[in-house]
Amino acid sequence: MDKFGLICSLCSRKIPFALEGKCTCGGTWLVEYDLQRAALTFTKKRLRARPASMWKYHELLPIAKLSSIISLGEGSTPLVRLTEWEKKLPLGGLYVKREEQNPTGSFKARGFASALTLINESGIKKVALPSNGNAAAALSAYASRAGMEAYVFLPADCPGLIIEECVNYGAHTYRVDGLIHDAGAIVEEGKLEQGWYNVGTMREPGRVEGKKTMGFELAEQLDWTLPDVIVYPAGGGSGLIGLWRAFHQLLAMGLVTGALPRFVAVQEDGCTPIVSAFWQHAQPETLPAGSPMPTGMRVPRPPNRNLIVSILRETKGTAIAVTREEIHAATAAMGLCGISSSPEGAATWAGLQRLIDSGWILGQDKVVLFNTSHAMKYTLYPTKLQLPLIKSYQDFKSIHSP
Amino acid sequence: MDKFGLICSLCSRKIPFALEGKCTCGGTWLVEYDLQRAALTFTKKRLRARPASMWKYHELLPIAKLSSIISLGEGSTPLVRLTEWEKKLPLGGLYVKREEQNPTGSFKARGFASALTLINESGIKKVALPSNGNAAAALSAYASRAGMEAYVFLPADCPGLIIEECVNYGAHTYRVDGLIHDAGAIVEEGKLEQGWYNVGTMREPGRVEGKKTMGFELAEQLDWTLPDVIVYPAGGGSGLIGLWRAFHQLLAMGLVTGALPRFVAVQEDGCTPIVSAFWQHAQPETLPAGSPMPTGMRVPRPPNRNLIVSILRETKGTAIAVTREEIHAATAAMGLCGISSSPEGAATWAGLQRLIDSGWILGQDKVVLFNTSHAMKYTLYPTKLQLPLIKSYQDFKSIHSP
Repeated sequence: MDKFGLICSLCSRKIPFALEGKCTCGGTWLVEYDLQRAALTFTKKRLRARPASMWKYHELLPIAKLSSIISLGEGSTPLVRLTEWEKKLPLGGLYVKREEQNPTGSFKARGFASALTLINESGIKKVALPSNGNAAAALSAYASRAGMEAYVFLPADCPGLIIEECVNYGAHTYRVDGLIHDAGAIVEEGKLEQGWYNVGTMREPGRVEGKKTMGFELAEQLDWTLPDVIVYPAGGGSGLIGLWRAFHQLLAMGLVTGALPRFVAVQEDGCTPIVSAFWQHAQPETLPAGSPMPTGMRVPRPPNRNLIVSILRETKGTAIAVTREEIHAATAAMGLCGISSSPEGAATWAGLQRLIDSGWILGQDKVVLFNTSHAMKYTLYPTKLQLPLIKSYQDFKSIHSP
Repeated sequence: MDKFGLICSLCSRKIPFALEGKCTCGGTWLVEYDLQRAALTFTKKRLRARPASMWKYHELLPIAKLSSIISLGEGSTPLVRLTEWEKKLPLGGLYVKREEQNPTGSFKARGFASALTLINESGIKKVALPSNGNAAAALSAYASRAGMEAYVFLPADCPGLIIEECVNYGAHTYRVDGLIHDAGAIVEEGKLEQGWYNVGTMREPGRVEGKKTMGFELAEQLDWTLPDVIVYPAGGGSGLIGLWRAFHQLLAMGLVTGALPRFVAVQEDGCTPIVSAFWQHAQPETLPAGSPMPTGMRVPRPPNRNLIVSILRETKGTAIAVTREEIHAATAAMGLCGISSSPEGAATWAGLQRLIDSGWILGQDKVVLFNTSHAMKYTLYPTKLQLPLIKSYQDFKSIHSP
């Protein structure tokens, strides 16, 4: 094989690398590498001497040449150990991976740094995205950095600061009267006519690959060991897919040993498609009014639900829903540790408490929580910007003047 | 000498290390190290192999033992090169040091990580601070991390998000009807009675030492060279003092060679004590109403003005004031580079344009701008918290129940 190619998560078919999201069988295209070749230079010693950046792991990122990299300083986020809480709970280890310290204030920066590097290598200059907020902000920033035009479509109740952030980065920004899948329908309807490349969740392989670097970093920060449990807030769930790929690659290359961490997907009550699928509960057709909060976890129809559930099962993990009240209490508890958490990050803390209470997480477990985004992004005040509110692609066309 | 001690910036008197800010002669206590001893392990090769953190530079930080470190993941912030603008302006190099990617969203994290490590080593458990905002947020977070009690006093017009941040970190938070020096007067008046350790600007040597790591990092990121020009937003100005100390230490150890960068201090029109002192202009007695913005640059009486002016002269630097309109235009320009800048960071961009126009910065110069804080912190919306507004220490006492 080449340095890298694609393999289907479901039927295992292999094809050369391409900007494709889904196999015809419905499976997800994942990037597969020539790990023996990568292992020649992807060594603990060499990695330690490389500058702090997610690009230090470039052998396992699907880019053609290092000179194409579109970067704003992503990756190399801190892993903070909470020793006081380890004693109190108790736990064998408790860490927070501070993904909010990325550019654009969220882990989404990693995915768009890699995706836009690939897309830019392909000569595409116009990208579009439905998003709950953080992905849109990251796309907006990286598109400007790459000299691309970005079109982002956000639910109308997206926090004002995130909307303003997209505008500040120069993106064409639209508020959509609906949820993230309604925004997605607009992008799909308009993509041919507008010449948009849809960079939505799992539409192409680059974003998951960038998120994968969280897993490499975590292993390196833990001196090439893996924790027992990963607690991750799940919306589209591609962060979990990235971590799962990263750990498998490290195991295959012998850089870590032992079992995969048990993966826990956390969602907020009111929108729990992954939790429902994991526990084989019926999923409500509509979301209850006013619930859940407009965060990155509010994704009623995750395009890779089956793959995520299979990862949870493979790793002997679980899925759990927490309440808004638990999230608020967790924000306060993390604040008193000196850590400002987004609702998504706080949800992992809330999930942890539940799983300790139920006995699923044990006293010797080493646990890593992911604070995926910056707290301030979720300040709920109405933006003062007079942005148009649209319901359909027709609405978009009626107001957009290129 | 010991591993480190204090030296007065004015009379050069030396004393053993202590938590002191000012010499009796009025000079500033600076930490002096046994550089020959430090150089045994502070080597390029060893530094490269240490984990990403400001603590990799520990030989030149005044801490007694590594196990005392109070950390939330500070330092190792990205240095982003803006190649498009280098061609456009032109410049020999243009970089933005993204200090907003620190914990608590500003460079202040570095100073409080080191200061609270020292203060904690001394057994002090109650700290107080007058601040324009970012320093208070950082103190609040690090105090909680260290198990200390923090009291922070902010001008009443401090942005709501920063006020909320301090409260979220568990600090006793007070809005003061006045400016930062009015808040400082309250801390000074109450410190004996309340048992507060005043950790305000240049009250102790730890904060400047932590900020110094920005300089070490910058040199390492530029492959152990120094830029020609540093543009830095100046309030209290201790960031500049830290950078100046860092570069002198690196030069003395032979880790870099050549001239010091020319240091530029940028302030906003309406509060320009450093610019006025540098140009020997009369300084207005009061601030014009509504001007300047409530940012970290609004410090009418910087306690180390003379030292800062002498640093600007020594480095053949300058001081410049920019307008609010220039700052807003700079925010937009940096946004289109994919960088979300605070007003302070945008002020450095505005200052750069001015100094290119005037011919002070030349086409071959390699320039570094410091984006000292997170853009979102300066969102001006009133906080919903019902915090007391005080005018005096008596007001504080009348409402504070310990």
